[in-house]
Amino acid sequence: MARAVELAAFGLGTTSPNPVVGCVILDAHGQVAGEGFHAYAGGPHAEVVALRDAGERARDGTAYVTLEPCDHTGSTGPCTEALLAAGLARVVYAVPDPNPLAAGGGERLRAHGVEVAHGLLGEEAERVNVAWLTSVRLGRPYVTWKFAATLDGRSAAADGTSKWITSPEARQDVHRLRATSDAIIAGIGTVLADDPLLTARPTQPVPDTGAVSDAGAVSDAGAVPEKGLDGAMREQLAEARRRARAPLRVVVDSGARTPPGARVLDRAAPTLVAVADSTRTGLQAELVRLPYRPDGLDLHALLKELRRRGVVSAFLEGGPTLAGSFVRQGLVDRVVAYVAPALLGSGRAALGQAGVSTIAGMHAFVFEEVSMIGPDLRITARPGTPKEK
Amino acid sequence: MARAVELAAFGLGTTSPNPVVGCVILDAHGQVAGEGFHAYAGGPHAEVVALRDAGERARDGTAYVTLEPCDHTGSTGPCTEALLAAGLARVVYAVPDPNPLAAGGGERLRAHGVEVAHGLLGEEAERVNVAWLTSVRLGRPYVTWKFAATLDGRSAAADGTSKWITSPEARQDVHRLRATSDAIIAGIGTVLADDPLLTARPTQPVPDTGAVSDAGAVSDAGAVPEKGLDGAMREQLAEARRRARAPLRVVVDSGARTPPGARVLDRAAPTLVAVADSTRTGLQAELVRLPYRPDGLDLHALLKELRRRGVVSAFLEGGPTLAGSFVRQGLVDRVVAYVAPALLGSGRAALGQAGVSTIAGMHAFVFEEVSMIGPDLRITARPGTPKEK
Repeated sequence: MARAVELAAFGLGTTSPNPVVGCVILDAHGQVAGEGFHAYAGGPHAEVVALRDAGERARDGTAYVTLEPCDHTGSTGPCTEALLAAGLARVVYAVPDPNPLAAGGGERLRAHGVEVAHGLLGEEAERVNVAWLTSVRLGRPYVTWKFAATLDGRSAAADGTSKWITSPEARQDVHRLRATSDAIIAGIGTVLADDPLLTARPTQPVPDTGAVSDAGAVSDAGAVPEKGLDGAMREQLAEARRRARAPLRVVVDSGARTPPGARVLDRAAPTLVAVADSTRTGLQAELVRLPYRPDGLDLHALLKELRRRGVVSAFLEGGPTLAGSFVRQGLVDRVVAYVAPALLGSGRAALGQAGVSTIAGMHAFVFEEVSMIGPDLRITARPGTPKEK
Repeated sequence: MARAVELAAFGLGTTSPNPVVGCVILDAHGQVAGEGFHAYAGGPHAEVVALRDAGERARDGTAYVTLEPCDHTGSTGPCTEALLAAGLARVVYAVPDPNPLAAGGGERLRAHGVEVAHGLLGEEAERVNVAWLTSVRLGRPYVTWKFAATLDGRSAAADGTSKWITSPEARQDVHRLRATSDAIIAGIGTVLADDPLLTARPTQPVPDTGAVSDAGAVSDAGAVPEKGLDGAMREQLAEARRRARAPLRVVVDSGARTPPGARVLDRAAPTLVAVADSTRTGLQAELVRLPYRPDGLDLHALLKELRRRGVVSAFLEGGPTLAGSFVRQGLVDRVVAYVAPALLGSGRAALGQAGVSTIAGMHAFVFEEVSMIGPDLRITARPGTPKEK
């Protein structure tokens, strides 16, 4: 199953709106007979790839799958059918499918006499698929908030300058994370201040100079090299990359103040500008109109709209005001902080008003991973309460 | 030499105003014959302890010492004499003595026919002794600035509440660090807001739940257990602990606003209140009068006075205004940040004005160590420029 999780990770960034799935098939003697993963939406599912790889050796064998095999016909046939046709004796899956449309695969297999077990390495399989699982469970994209700041929490100096607080290595790591996201979200403040492109421009995998976690590494495996993949899977991966679309750029801009010449509106990637439903504008851009609430645009409505467009994972890049709104509304599923070894003592804080007035109300997280990225620290946290606090 | 550095660390917190020193003696056949460290000011030096342990086996042997053996008579005789009397063939020391009074030991030994080498594990030996070496080189105590904050750099919520941002484990770790310091410094703002005791109240060593450094751990070895020490050295350590004084409490309070009933003035430890030389006050406390500059009390003068009183290592505990003054004046030698897995979005920043207006002027540090302390991160940094930035 550990190998299946590893295989699943190859799909990260290219399978949306589908989950990432990995599958390993052992023959009746317990020898590895086939491997596969789901590489792109519309492409064959992991089980099908692995069965193809195994051929006749699958008969009376065992399939290890990271997610409960689907039981519905989408753009491909149901995996349960394929598994039954191959004559497998046993299917072990890690995580039950939370999608009511596709679930029931385990039951179906069992009803046809296949021995079915689940839960093995569930935590690891859950982690590799956390974006998709979250999007299905909550009906909105999985949101990663990224910020870069000094050790004292400043993301710009007093005069507004912020280039560059963090290192080239950290910025390259951001491009890698952007590339594994379906959408990149920024506020109008950031667009006006920095005129960012908001595109993913990874050059090559940035090796961590030291992974320093006691909580398990996070699975941003977009940069996983292809070693260990056989020819068929390499082709799948290449095809997935050919089909990969640039992440959708989203500007949260209630008053439609995005300048017509803003770089975020260029042709490098599609862009969506979220404006208040009452805003009149002649802005030449794809607009989505959202209800306006006392504290800004309705972010739940924004995320729902993004999900409708197939966005499974969204990458929120600030600025502090927008991030504060997301945090206040409990819409941040993961924080990735790039912390520079520097002190400013004044200037823009990384996070703006997040609805907290007293210490008991602070937003609680748990640290998930810490790495050195060049001279900087990358700190990953997810919402939750530390067990022993 | 690695063992000598390890031995030196046993002295941390109890040797001021002396350095920590460790010594290992090999006999003529290269077998360990004796070990020692310097445990307390006035007590025998590391070399003498190790020579005593080695006895006749020291003859024609080699001594590994973390610091150049002293060549002057203080409260004990010069170590060079002891080494010569024992008939050692070779002396290897890690770090030259920067103290002009005591230096020249290497030369003296060489002049008497002893083979002398130095530099071995110099970096490690320098690190274990960094407080003392800094105090000798700069003529002022080594200053550690400690702060506790959320991941977004806030050390209190909007309403001023700050108990507790970090975990009991982190607070206990602070007590451990306080206990290895000669002085604990706080500003009047902190005294008025929190009425802290500013004493070291370590209960027992807090084990790190995960040391996560690629830059080498920092040597806060006050909590090192006594295992691996023979009976004589255990006695030395016990004696050192009997003699240990509570760290001096220092309140930076230009206007002498410390309330007479403040807990920092209780009898738990000595306290010094630093006031402006022009301030008139009837405050019943030991006062030190310092020049007042446009940006506050003359901190260089304060540190010089502390050094005069034998303070080698000072532990600065805020608040943000005082920390900003220390950072601005380049008087912070080490930052220890306890970062809680939480977000506030508003409230008091960890660091106040530090004289930086634009990004190019930010105070540059390098990360030295990162650990998990309970649910929190402890991040250690020292001034410097990252090599590859």
